[in-house]
Amino acid sequence: MDRERMDAQFAFCAEIDKEKQIGRQTWLADGSRKENDAEHAWHMAIMALILQEYSNEEIDLLRVISMILIHDIVEIDAGDTFAYDEEAKKDQEEREKKAADRIFSMLPEDQAKKFRALWDEFEAWETPEAKFARALDNAQPLTLQNAAGGKGWTEHGVRLEQVMKRNQRSSEGSQDIWEYCYENFISPYAEAGILKQSNHDEL
Amino acid sequence: MDRERMDAQFAFCAEIDKEKQIGRQTWLADGSRKENDAEHAWHMAIMALILQEYSNEEIDLLRVISMILIHDIVEIDAGDTFAYDEEAKKDQEEREKKAADRIFSMLPEDQAKKFRALWDEFEAWETPEAKFARALDNAQPLTLQNAAGGKGWTEHGVRLEQVMKRNQRSSEGSQDIWEYCYENFISPYAEAGILKQSNHDEL
Repeated sequence: MDRERMDAQFAFCAEIDKEKQIGRQTWLADGSRKENDAEHAWHMAIMALILQEYSNEEIDLLRVISMILIHDIVEIDAGDTFAYDEEAKKDQEEREKKAADRIFSMLPEDQAKKFRALWDEFEAWETPEAKFARALDNAQPLTLQNAAGGKGWTEHGVRLEQVMKRNQRSSEGSQDIWEYCYENFISPYAEAGILKQSNHDEL
Repeated sequence: MDRERMDAQFAFCAEIDKEKQIGRQTWLADGSRKENDAEHAWHMAIMALILQEYSNEEIDLLRVISMILIHDIVEIDAGDTFAYDEEAKKDQEEREKKAADRIFSMLPEDQAKKFRALWDEFEAWETPEAKFARALDNAQPLTLQNAAGGKGWTEHGVRLEQVMKRNQRSSEGSQDIWEYCYENFISPYAEAGILKQSNHDEL
């Protein structure tokens, strides 16, 4: 047993516990509180298991799930950037890269490289695996928004255009999941006026 | 797109959100609050990615992680049974089987069978994958107990024998992880008197 290697691995495992304290803007299904990054990643990972058949392209599911599990670890340092906060999004990339440099390098070098590459792959949004993981990164909060009756949208006065912009690449990972989410979790909220539309405001 | 199938899958995905509200007895690393089942499963799944090289036997990592992600879903109905609560453990199996019957059967039949089989495999503790997943189900709270200075043990007056009994099969999944955990996360707490030993009490 390589003691130094295990020390580094267990130190990393203890460090990532902090992800459980990074709050998100998505309410739980019953609207009792908002979820955190660790819960979000767990939920997305199970959704990958359940919904893998709807990926547009063939995927390596283990790579998808690995990516999902670690995709928000950088937020331990960089914090969660709300999808509709344009100001915070400006330096998001820089903050997250710095975080990735610090956190992944706690691992033994071979694993640091491997996990950093997985995170870079998710960020780059190019491979079939990254596209499917990204589609779920959008579908998971939509599932919860719907279960909680659009509570987070009402709270922040989110507009339909903002949701559509956030989801503009969701269909690249899964046309079926995107269509299902649009029809069931977005469109009814636009029709009910919970997601505001520009032309409604201009009247 | 099979609409009925997707309805069932998304209903399951919304239902499992409840796992985020099933509290455990393990304190977060910083001792600020206790974790929940969803956070625990996420943490274990990453530990499987990081520590897979220490499995005693060759394992299918995707099956290990799938098992880990879903292993506590039954607690949505059955609640968390504290590892050292002998009374609650008496009807734990019955409560959890009933929960598995209800929750997994929300899925389309092929997936209901698949996920139930995975849960049964974890429970049976016989395959290399189940043994490794179980080893992590023990190693993850030990990692946090240590980070939080044994706070949960102090709180409940847990005894060394209880920890050893809970971990009596941990080495079946990974001799290395078990040895590391014993030496770093258990033994020092016994030496410091935080985990009480019978002969100390009898003095």
